[in-house]
Amino acid sequence: MTDQTDKGAAGRAPGRSQAGPHPLGGSADVLVGRGADVLARLADVIEQRKGGDPDKSYVARLFHKGSDAILKKIGEEATEVVMACKDGEPAKIVAETADLWFHSMLALSAFGLRPADVIAELERREGLSGLEEFALRKHEQRSKEGT
Amino acid sequence: MTDQTDKGAAGRAPGRSQAGPHPLGGSADVLVGRGADVLARLADVIEQRKGGDPDKSYVARLFHKGSDAILKKIGEEATEVVMACKDGEPAKIVAETADLWFHSMLALSAFGLRPADVIAELERREGLSGLEEFALRKHEQRSKEGT
Amino acid sequence: MTDQTDKGAAGRAPGRSQAGPHPLGGSADVLVGRGADVLARLADVIEQRKGGDPDKSYVARLFHKGSDAILKKIGEEATEVVMACKDGEPAKIVAETADLWFHSMLALSAFGLRPADVIAELERREGLSGLEEFALRKHEQRSKEGT
Amino acid sequence: MTDQTDKGAAGRAPGRSQAGPHPLGGSADVLVGRGADVLARLADVIEQRKGGDPDKSYVARLFHKGSDAILKKIGEEATEVVMACKDGEPAKIVAETADLWFHSMLALSAFGLRPADVIAELERREGLSGLEEFALRKHEQRSKEGT
Repeated sequence: MTDQTDKGAAGRAPGRSQAGPHPLGGSADVLVGRGADVLARLADVIEQRKGGDPDKSYVARLFHKGSDAILKKIGEEATEVVMACKDGEPAKIVAETADLWFHSMLALSAFGLRPADVIAELERREGLSGLEEFALRKHEQRSKEGT
Repeated sequence: MTDQTDKGAAGRAPGRSQAGPHPLGGSADVLVGRGADVLARLADVIEQRKGGDPDKSYVARLFHKGSDAILKKIGEEATEVVMACKDGEPAKIVAETADLWFHSMLALSAFGLRPADVIAELERREGLSGLEEFALRKHEQRSKEGT
Repeated sequence: MTDQTDKGAAGRAPGRSQAGPHPLGGSADVLVGRGADVLARLADVIEQRKGGDPDKSYVARLFHKGSDAILKKIGEEATEVVMACKDGEPAKIVAETADLWFHSMLALSAFGLRPADVIAELERREGLSGLEEFALRKHEQRSKEGT
Repeated sequence: MTDQTDKGAAGRAPGRSQAGPHPLGGSADVLVGRGADVLARLADVIEQRKGGDPDKSYVARLFHKGSDAILKKIGEEATEVVMACKDGEPAKIVAETADLWFHSMLALSAFGLRPADVIAELERREGLSGLEEFALRKHEQRSKEGT
């Protein structure tokens, strides 16, 4: 974590800092600081289920079908996120994004990875410099490649 | 970070519980309990950048182009996650999943939502009963619809 | 079939001009000049089915569920094309591309369009100048936008 | 081709048989029977370009970057088709579907395949029995798998 980031975050409730009412009508502030725990616990649940009875567990069923079945779901759920956003329905956007992240976590698990690995990668890019470096890389790559 | 999270991390190391070496050769354990902070801080950085100078910030540039540009990236990044998984390269899978989650967060922001909303939805489904309920819903829906 | 097509096929065998054996072990040459008929007839079949009994027809079932169900399939089938290509299995690539084109045709039909409209658009871009114009447009747009 | 299909097509202009004005305000009828030629000629153009100068040709540039670059475009263009459909803009739907089919053809070419192979697969499924068999297969598979 960089100084810049600490300064940026200082003095603000990190969970929901923008003004105005929440589109879902509630507050997500209470979850701040519990999210990683939720992702880690969900990853634990996935680990427990993945070898279970395909007739009793959705997770076991997908793993039983193989990683291609999981990957196919990622394409499907990403499309549903896009559609929910085009519909502009907040509850649907959240539900479909949860579906997308959940199936991403199944893919991570299929390859021995954890959500904490993704969080670490995001943290690496998180600072002002990091995000700009990320942006710049994409920008230069695209301009160079011309696609 | 809440007491609950600290206790959770202390008691059972939820970050990486499976046996065996990590495919990236390191440990993500240190991140346990910090992930939500990372996501919340990253969401804060996005909020700060989204109205900025499109010439200086990747986030500002995407928001300047409009939400369709963000949604298009979700489809693109989901495809890259699938391809990384097909290649079976852990570092690439993590990097592409981070890209996918990052652009999902841009979409959330475009609709006034936060990662905490998605975490809350995942938590709602997280328990044994919740995940099975989720699985059951999908199962029954699909069987009924026959697609 | 028009004279133009017959002449085109006679003069330079447009169906399969590259050297070497076909990855599927057969020849697609016999189809040259019949493809538009196939797409047009398939579009006709879709028109006939779309209002039918959802219990008896896959097409009717998807239309009964609504256009979102069709769009979701496009995301899913595109992902399957990508996966088939990563597997490098010719028969699978063809089958999944057929699935993708078929569901694209369902989407076209849902919006009162026909494969001939897409063919016309491709023809418009087809010439040497057209394809380069297309490439140039993409190139310049991307470079300008920097994404 | 089955008797059923021949009868179905008999007496009707296969290109655009539904009633009502065309959403693009024109007629695609003139293209009927030329479509396969367009796809075959476009495939020929792709074959000519793929080994060309990446600085001068979009096709050459994508092939120079490798098949992953092409596959990524398929995910991207599929998402754009979905978005165009959500916007309900006929000209955009046609343009994005043309993009999707075009990039599918690049993928086919990357694996030594041709649009005629996909047309042949669609024809194989085209008849009443074929489409129903296709539907039934999907239906039974999904119901059995429960996903």
